[in-house]
Amino acid sequence: MTSYGLLIFDGADELDFTGPWEVFAVSSILRNGADTSSLIAAGTDVVSCQKGMRVVPSHTLENHPPLDVLVVPGGSGVLREIDNPVINDWIRKTAASAAWTSSVSTGGFLLHSAGPMRGHRVTTHHAYIDRLKALGDVTVIPDARYVVDGNLITSQGISAGIDMALWLVGRLHGRDHAREVQWRLQYYPAPPYQADEPL
Amino acid sequence: MTSYGLLIFDGADELDFTGPWEVFAVSSILRNGADTSSLIAAGTDVVSCQKGMRVVPSHTLENHPPLDVLVVPGGSGVLREIDNPVINDWIRKTAASAAWTSSVSTGGFLLHSAGPMRGHRVTTHHAYIDRLKALGDVTVIPDARYVVDGNLITSQGISAGIDMALWLVGRLHGRDHAREVQWRLQYYPAPPYQADEPL
Repeated sequence: MTSYGLLIFDGADELDFTGPWEVFAVSSILRNGADTSSLIAAGTDVVSCQKGMRVVPSHTLENHPPLDVLVVPGGSGVLREIDNPVINDWIRKTAASAAWTSSVSTGGFLLHSAGPMRGHRVTTHHAYIDRLKALGDVTVIPDARYVVDGNLITSQGISAGIDMALWLVGRLHGRDHAREVQWRLQYYPAPPYQADEPL
Repeated sequence: MTSYGLLIFDGADELDFTGPWEVFAVSSILRNGADTSSLIAAGTDVVSCQKGMRVVPSHTLENHPPLDVLVVPGGSGVLREIDNPVINDWIRKTAASAAWTSSVSTGGFLLHSAGPMRGHRVTTHHAYIDRLKALGDVTVIPDARYVVDGNLITSQGISAGIDMALWLVGRLHGRDHAREVQWRLQYYPAPPYQADEPL
């Protein structure tokens, strides 16, 4: 049984957490519902995400189950939460007991303010690479889709959380399992407009 | 200004609509907020998605703005909604006035029950290809990531909605714009475990 916890907050970017959420859920389905995923917020209020989607948290910082995996998404709300001692304390405490601590996009800045990122090899959204480097106490790997350093995993921007989550379910439950999750998600991406051809 | 509308219902699959939602939102941001996206449900109640995420709809079937683009997601709830005359009537009416009608994954079955899919080249989630073929009045293209036939776009399973939405914003606002959206989303996917190597 794996317990996943995804932190959400006003201004969290939608795909940063719904991508990993979907990967973890499909992984659990293929494991006969063995796993749980929690959407954890500071309170019980509806969370207004960066792009306007409103999501009801399943748990608060106080009542969530123990977590094996922590996921911290990015988004415009990060700028506020890096100064929130309650969130920082919770991340620090939760990361200390989780088997894996991860971030998507600018969520990495919360892992820095809370502590777990410091001294590590890390990445973030391409638009924030210089700011991450300026923090000084991290080794920034701009070109990696996600960076695994010990039990810390940081991802590039937004969509990279899907690849990171897929890597993680493979690490936890095997490569064959991860490939089965990929198949169920039909995740064989084909971004359009990779060629320039007459319309 | 482009008005996007994403239908949601109990048992809608999360990534089926949050993927396109994110693409449309980033597209709008890059167009200085020119566009709107609505999460449309039958009522105002919180929607419980297939994998357990609870989402607050922004509009109902009665009060949403006119739509240029309709997106119908798949998920376990489709089996219920294909017999729901209110949803079918709404899809039929909405598709008739929208510039584009689209589905992700098994959402295509709703486009069939409501009518707009019939007689067209279409696709769906790989696990439902045979059932789609069995409907008899569609030409099923199993291996296309998404199928564009007239103003109808149907997608493969779950993650394929991201590629479909990215194609659509390019069709609406230009290929250079779509590439900019891809860049902002950092959507250069790298699914793991594509090689079998020693762990």
